[in-house]
Amino acid sequence: MSKNEVIYLPLGGAGEIGMNCYVYGYGPKDRERLIVIDLGVAFPDMDTTPGVDLIFPDIAWLEERRDRIEAVFVTHAHEDHVGGVGRLWSRLKCPVYARPFTAAVARRKMIEADQPETEVTTVEPWPHQVQAGPFQVGYLPMSHSIPESSALVIDTPKGRILHTGDFKLDRDPGVGDPYDPALWAEVAADGVLALACDSTNVFNPHPGRSETLVGPEIRKMVAGCSGMVVATTFASNIARLKTLAEAGRDAGRSVVLLGRAMRRMVQEAIETGVLKDFPPTVSAEDAVQIPRENLMLLVTGSQGERRAASAQLARGKYLGLQMKPGDTFLFSSKIIPGNERGVFRIINQFSEMGIDVVDDSDGLYHVSGHANRPDLTEIHQIVRPQIVVPMHGEHRHLREHVKLAEQNGLPGILAPNGTLVQLSGGTPKVVGFVDTGRTYLDGSSMIGAMDGVVRDRIRMALNGHVLVTLIIDENDDPLGEPWCEAMGLPATGRSRAPLVEVMEDDLAQVLGRADDDVLIDDDKLTEMMRRTVRNSAQNEIGKKPEVTVVISRLSE
Amino acid sequence: MSKNEVIYLPLGGAGEIGMNCYVYGYGPKDRERLIVIDLGVAFPDMDTTPGVDLIFPDIAWLEERRDRIEAVFVTHAHEDHVGGVGRLWSRLKCPVYARPFTAAVARRKMIEADQPETEVTTVEPWPHQVQAGPFQVGYLPMSHSIPESSALVIDTPKGRILHTGDFKLDRDPGVGDPYDPALWAEVAADGVLALACDSTNVFNPHPGRSETLVGPEIRKMVAGCSGMVVATTFASNIARLKTLAEAGRDAGRSVVLLGRAMRRMVQEAIETGVLKDFPPTVSAEDAVQIPRENLMLLVTGSQGERRAASAQLARGKYLGLQMKPGDTFLFSSKIIPGNERGVFRIINQFSEMGIDVVDDSDGLYHVSGHANRPDLTEIHQIVRPQIVVPMHGEHRHLREHVKLAEQNGLPGILAPNGTLVQLSGGTPKVVGFVDTGRTYLDGSSMIGAMDGVVRDRIRMALNGHVLVTLIIDENDDPLGEPWCEAMGLPATGRSRAPLVEVMEDDLAQVLGRADDDVLIDDDKLTEMMRRTVRNSAQNEIGKKPEVTVVISRLSE
Repeated sequence: MSKNEVIYLPLGGAGEIGMNCYVYGYGPKDRERLIVIDLGVAFPDMDTTPGVDLIFPDIAWLEERRDRIEAVFVTHAHEDHVGGVGRLWSRLKCPVYARPFTAAVARRKMIEADQPETEVTTVEPWPHQVQAGPFQVGYLPMSHSIPESSALVIDTPKGRILHTGDFKLDRDPGVGDPYDPALWAEVAADGVLALACDSTNVFNPHPGRSETLVGPEIRKMVAGCSGMVVATTFASNIARLKTLAEAGRDAGRSVVLLGRAMRRMVQEAIETGVLKDFPPTVSAEDAVQIPRENLMLLVTGSQGERRAASAQLARGKYLGLQMKPGDTFLFSSKIIPGNERGVFRIINQFSEMGIDVVDDSDGLYHVSGHANRPDLTEIHQIVRPQIVVPMHGEHRHLREHVKLAEQNGLPGILAPNGTLVQLSGGTPKVVGFVDTGRTYLDGSSMIGAMDGVVRDRIRMALNGHVLVTLIIDENDDPLGEPWCEAMGLPATGRSRAPLVEVMEDDLAQVLGRADDDVLIDDDKLTEMMRRTVRNSAQNEIGKKPEVTVVISRLSE
Repeated sequence: MSKNEVIYLPLGGAGEIGMNCYVYGYGPKDRERLIVIDLGVAFPDMDTTPGVDLIFPDIAWLEERRDRIEAVFVTHAHEDHVGGVGRLWSRLKCPVYARPFTAAVARRKMIEADQPETEVTTVEPWPHQVQAGPFQVGYLPMSHSIPESSALVIDTPKGRILHTGDFKLDRDPGVGDPYDPALWAEVAADGVLALACDSTNVFNPHPGRSETLVGPEIRKMVAGCSGMVVATTFASNIARLKTLAEAGRDAGRSVVLLGRAMRRMVQEAIETGVLKDFPPTVSAEDAVQIPRENLMLLVTGSQGERRAASAQLARGKYLGLQMKPGDTFLFSSKIIPGNERGVFRIINQFSEMGIDVVDDSDGLYHVSGHANRPDLTEIHQIVRPQIVVPMHGEHRHLREHVKLAEQNGLPGILAPNGTLVQLSGGTPKVVGFVDTGRTYLDGSSMIGAMDGVVRDRIRMALNGHVLVTLIIDENDDPLGEPWCEAMGLPATGRSRAPLVEVMEDDLAQVLGRADDDVLIDDDKLTEMMRRTVRNSAQNEIGKKPEVTVVISRLSE
């Protein structure tokens, strides 16, 4: 019988910023008892995932070992950590733990996915610990851009692991728990086997800044505005929402929350007690009656999302409210890389409306929720783990974080998604690789990233799509001419004749010359017609479309 | 008879950074003689223009007035200024002027589009002037990230216009002309009617930096590398290429140019005399024989373009050359907003290969080619025009630049694409609006942005595409069952049955109940089947696909 060991396996989040899902195990090889940290989602884009609604980590590996899973622990309520709890739970069917605000969000995810919300258990913070098989897991309060973000103290029979979750070093985060270095020193005092650590901002060389810095700047800015003020930030950034709302109230403005996610988050934060003394708000209906210089709207859509309140205001009226020249729009947020096009689109729309847009380019109205490089060093040095395991980052972040650990005199291990690492037994080492990937929520279906569905969509988007129909009669001869329909292709090409007619003529010619052994064989016939259409299109319009051929045989 | 006036009309570039095309006119209303400044292109993206190869300004307005066009003046050889010369020339058929290096590129564009390269005339810089109808146009040498960029001094009977083209204030740009404030003061001395001015960097509050600053940093960095060094920048940034090549040579490395655009640009720069003393280069074939620590590759693809040399190296071998752990990849460039996903994709690929990537995040290895806010103020103050006309920017840039002009005590006018401005006759004012837009090169076809072709592609990418075929017999009854083919959709949905079978069953049921007046009417039948398929899909997979229906009537 093999020895008991501690293992670590990232299934998502170590190779992207998004869809976090990390596994720890303890026990003999292939019989480890398992806990799962976070079940998050990632968001689609047109380049790689057109039409997809949400992206989940592929949890097939976990599903096959369902009987060995003790629990899921959710570190905080950001979508990339909690967003998959509802949709993925039925495949794991194990207890879910989280602190109150996070648990409220996790329960909502369960309800939305028709799963039992009672499976989500609320836990107290450290020094309380949850027993989960051979693990004892405690929630160490930590500062981040959402309340209740926690590092997990994971005690195993072979030693303690610290799993940071998402964090920044903010001793005064406004809402939520402050960073308490003494607490970190205390939990690390007896030695730490491994520090699994957020890597998001490893490339930022400046020490992180406190949430308290933005308050005075925002108040000053809002006080100086004459028209309506509209501000956006992440709906889950409760501290920022409070800062913004207070700045509005202090400037004599009524505060309006626009966008379902924002209203829900504020409500959940109040109900769970993490948000206190939030200024009173008015509804959009009531706001219409209030002079615009007395209004402060807090809206969803800091990333330029097309359906969010910000984008709706950029296109015109939203719930009766409309921006006008002299109004101000504040992005109290940064652009997540990849979202630039969407954000600049709405900024330009506001510009066309004569609205002043204030963004974070001066660093006055936003601070990041993640630890920068010097902050990571501070945590490395407080914890002094036997190994640093960078997580929560693209490959470039993980690799840089390993280098940083080594600069700090600590070994680091590069473990992207699917890397099975043995943390116990002296020197941590990679002991295997697991197939990982992504699963897409597409409408109401879950589809695999490699199913070809999205690949076909991308091909149609790049190349257009031609449909060819042909009827074959009882004697295996074409009945009439083949018929083409084109979608997403120019109507005419080089010859100036309609493209579909050129294709149909070429098809008719090729069919006229076709041998009987082709005409009786659907595969051969399809391939011949496909090739003909692609060549016709190449000649006419210089591109080869996707082609679908439908052959109807009257004999059948 | 109406008075002679000077007019300005942007057809591209004032509403985006790209596809620059500006028109000036002089004469009586609607009979003005016209000159065109630049015929540029913009680049497509998956979000808005999937499958498109290049984007051109819609020049229908110019084409309708072709007999009134005196000439096209190209300010410099960047694609967003010269890229449309070849493809658009046949619709204007007028002389094209440019300085030698720019003219070489313009001639290449003409040749590639099967147009007469002899229509491109090389001009001398200021104080030489070209007579073009009522205009006299001189090329004022100016610094930018490409040699020979020039401001245009446009003299009209009603006064002088300065059209900056793209510029930065660099008194020592390495290759190309330096900024000479005395020269600007001299041309502006007798008064300037209007300053049409680059707005790209109006949001950057810092004074611009000189190209000379990056040389020592790049030399230091390259000298410290042990493996192969690969650097990328824009192929047209000849000064940077020289700096990079010299840093390689000084570190004892052989220089290799990889990527067709880069080799061609260097060759054209040498042939036209703007580039002198470029270090000797070796071919990729010869480079394979040289130890990697003695190699410096300069490659295309600073924006992560999928087919460029950088992306090919990130995927594996390129022309026999392959990067390895210990090598260094330098981005001597910035990411153009919108290209982040592509750039980070290749950085992550390099990271997976164990290659160190150095980028411009510290500002050491790149300087911008555009004037920052204080630089714009400097030009405003030297020129002191009667009006500032911001160009070369998105709406947000133009609007901010108007504000900056006003801060500088000068009137500014917001004139996005299609705004017809009268510059002469006292106070400049908007006198009309012209329909403008975009034309796409798609394969070998030119298509209008509003033709619906690209819209259909986007819809297929988001929603998938279902093809329905039905045969109707001589008695107007369905012959057999309807047939469905799906592309870009999940194979199964809620019921677990194959999606196309569910659709076919639903169609068969609906057809079975269909009245004769529907069965004889292709439009009604198509609409009924389309709706049925969309509803089936909505039930099964929660999304409504695009549907194409093909009805074959045997009676016809």
